[in-house]
Amino acid sequence: MDLPQMLNPTPRFLMGPGPSDVHPRVLRAMATPVVGHLDPGFLGLMNEVKSMLRTLLRTDNDLTYAVSGTGSAGMETCFVNLLEPGDTVVVCVNGVFGNRMCDVAERCGAVVARVDAPWGQPVDPLEVEAALEEHHPKVLAVVHAETSTGVQQPLEDLGQLARDNGALFLVDGVTSLGGTDVRVDDWGIDAFYSGTQKCLSAPPGLAPVSFSPRAVEVMENRENKEQSWYLDMTMVRKYWGAERVYHHTAPITSIYGLHEALRLVLEEGLEARFTRHQRHHALLRDGLERLGFEFVVEEPFRLPMLNAVRLPKGVEDAPTRKALLDEYNIEVGAGLGEFAGKVWRIGLMGNSCTANHVNLLLAALGEILAR
Amino acid sequence: MDLPQMLNPTPRFLMGPGPSDVHPRVLRAMATPVVGHLDPGFLGLMNEVKSMLRTLLRTDNDLTYAVSGTGSAGMETCFVNLLEPGDTVVVCVNGVFGNRMCDVAERCGAVVARVDAPWGQPVDPLEVEAALEEHHPKVLAVVHAETSTGVQQPLEDLGQLARDNGALFLVDGVTSLGGTDVRVDDWGIDAFYSGTQKCLSAPPGLAPVSFSPRAVEVMENRENKEQSWYLDMTMVRKYWGAERVYHHTAPITSIYGLHEALRLVLEEGLEARFTRHQRHHALLRDGLERLGFEFVVEEPFRLPMLNAVRLPKGVEDAPTRKALLDEYNIEVGAGLGEFAGKVWRIGLMGNSCTANHVNLLLAALGEILAR
Repeated sequence: MDLPQMLNPTPRFLMGPGPSDVHPRVLRAMATPVVGHLDPGFLGLMNEVKSMLRTLLRTDNDLTYAVSGTGSAGMETCFVNLLEPGDTVVVCVNGVFGNRMCDVAERCGAVVARVDAPWGQPVDPLEVEAALEEHHPKVLAVVHAETSTGVQQPLEDLGQLARDNGALFLVDGVTSLGGTDVRVDDWGIDAFYSGTQKCLSAPPGLAPVSFSPRAVEVMENRENKEQSWYLDMTMVRKYWGAERVYHHTAPITSIYGLHEALRLVLEEGLEARFTRHQRHHALLRDGLERLGFEFVVEEPFRLPMLNAVRLPKGVEDAPTRKALLDEYNIEVGAGLGEFAGKVWRIGLMGNSCTANHVNLLLAALGEILAR
Repeated sequence: MDLPQMLNPTPRFLMGPGPSDVHPRVLRAMATPVVGHLDPGFLGLMNEVKSMLRTLLRTDNDLTYAVSGTGSAGMETCFVNLLEPGDTVVVCVNGVFGNRMCDVAERCGAVVARVDAPWGQPVDPLEVEAALEEHHPKVLAVVHAETSTGVQQPLEDLGQLARDNGALFLVDGVTSLGGTDVRVDDWGIDAFYSGTQKCLSAPPGLAPVSFSPRAVEVMENRENKEQSWYLDMTMVRKYWGAERVYHHTAPITSIYGLHEALRLVLEEGLEARFTRHQRHHALLRDGLERLGFEFVVEEPFRLPMLNAVRLPKGVEDAPTRKALLDEYNIEVGAGLGEFAGKVWRIGLMGNSCTANHVNLLLAALGEILAR
C-alpha cells in the first residue's frame, strides 16, 4: 500500500449534536507527554478530575469518575452494574437515546417497561408514577437532554417519584452536563452518565459517571457478576479509588484533555456558563425563526444546547447541510429516526456556544436560502 | 473547591509494560482540531487506519478497525461477539491475561475449559490438541504475548489445530503488535485484538481488532443479541464500513493519534521494526544479566518487548523502582500476581525501544545497585 499522507482534516465550526469545538488549551493539554497509568503524577490528576466532576455534578458521591469509553459506554456502565437478569426497569422513551436504554437494559436480561412520549415532548410524570406503581422496578431510567429531539426533561419530580417507589434513579446527562444545571444530590439521582464531547468540549472518548451510596450498595450486593468485565465497577473503582489496583490501562491522554476541559468549565463558573448557553440559544432562535425554521419543542422544555428545528418549506436537508459544510465549514446535525430529512439538530455546546458561531451560521444560511 | 493547576506531569522514560513513549508526531497529530465523526475528512482517515492496520496485521480481513476502548475492551469485543450462552471455549492460561480471558468468557455464559501452563512457560500444543479433541469448542483462545510473564506463544501450530478441530482461533496481540510479527491470515487467526499503547506507541484508548470471514459468519448467525450494545460488531461495522450508520461518537482525537502512529510504523517498515526490537532486547539482556538479573522465560519463547526478569538477591522491588522513577524518571513495571515483589517487567516497546533507553536504564540501575 502507499503510505497515507499526514492527517490534514479541514477545520470546522462544530454546530451539530457533538463533538463540539475543543478549546486550544484542551488540545495542548492532550499533547502533553504520556506517563504511566500508575505514575504518582497521573494519580494526582485523576483525583483532581474526580473532584472537579463532583463540583460540576453538585454531588458528594465518592464513586464519581470517567469511564474509558464514549457516552454510550457510560450508559452501558450504569445498566450492567445496577441490573441483573430478571430485574425490572422502567425506561422513559421520547427519542433515540431512550430507545437505546431499552436495548441496553434488555441485553442485561432485564424486563423493560416503557413510558413513551411523542418525539419532541417530555415524558409525563403522571404516567411515570403509574408505571412505577404498576411495575415496582429496581430502576427508573430517563434521558435528561434527549439529543435526538432537543427536549429537556425536568428531573426533580421524577427523582422524588423514584425514591417514593423504592427505585434507583438513572439519568442520561450526555448532552446536558456543562451546558445546563445538573444537581445529582438535590434531584436524587443514583446513577448518572455523560460524555466529554458535548458541553464539556473535550474530544469524545470518556464518559463521566457518578453513583450514589444507594447505587453502590446495590452493586456490592449483586448475586451475579456484572456481564461486562471492562465496565465492572466493583473492579474499576479500586483503580480510581485509594487502592490503585490495576484493572485496565487508563486512556491517559483523554484524561489530560478532560482535566483541562473541566478547569475551563470551573474557571468560567457554572452559573455564567449556563447563562451563556441560554443567551446564545435565544440569539439563534430569533435568527432561525426569521429564516422560517420552526422549533420542534415547546418553549419550557427546549434544550439551549441542542436546537431541533423543522426545515422551512422548500429547503432540502442534505444539499443544504452539504453547502454549509463545503462552503462555510459549518457542521450542523441531521435528524435521526422519524426526524430524518425533516429536522436539523443545531448544537450550541460548550466552546461552540458563542455569538460568533450563531452569527456565522445565520449569515451562511441566509446566503444559501436566498439562492 | 480550589481550581487545580494546569496539568504538569513529570516527563518519564516509559519502560514498563505500557504505555510506551509516544512520538512527538503522534502528540502533535492529537492536537489537530476535532471534526465531526461523520465528516468526510474523518471518514477518509478511518479508511486509512483500516488499510494501515491490515498491512500491519498481514490480513485481507474486511472487518479490521479500532474499538473505542483500551485493549481490554478489545478482548471483550472478541468474546461477546463470538460467544453465546452455553458455548464452549478452550482458553490457554499462563499468566494474568489468559486468566482475564476466562473471566470475560464466563461472563458471556460460556463454558470455559482451561489449558494451563506454569507462569513463564508457553502452553504445550499437545495439551491444547487434547483439549480441543475432548471439548470440541467453538473458540480456542490464546495470548500471543503474555504481558505478565514475557512469554511469546508460537501461534502457527495452534491455528492449524483450531482449524482441524472446527474451532475459531482468537488471539490476544496487545503487546506483540508492532514489535514482532503478527500474521493473521497465514496463522489462521479468526479474531484478533491489540492495544495502541504498547509497540504502536500511541496513547492508550483504542483496541485494533480484526475478524476473519469465518468469524463474521458466526456473528451474523447468532441466536442471541450480543450482550454488549457498545461493542456489538453487527452495529459498529456499519459505521466503520461503507454504510456509515451512526452507532456511537468515535473517539476522533485518539484515531488521529493512531493514524500517525501507524504511519510511523509503516515508514520504518515492519521487518526493520521487528529487528530493532530484537537488537535492543539483546543489548538489554546482556546488561541486565551482568547486573545479576535472571530472565524468567527460556530463550526461544522470550518476548523482545517485554523482559520479565527476577531481581538479584538483596535488591528490593518497590524502593528500587521508586529510585528509578524519582531520581531518573524511568518507569519499569512491577510483577503481577505470583510474580509480585520478585519480578520486574521491563518494556522495550515501539518508541521506548532504543539503545538510549537501554543505556539510561542500565546506567541508572548500576548506580542504584552500587549504593
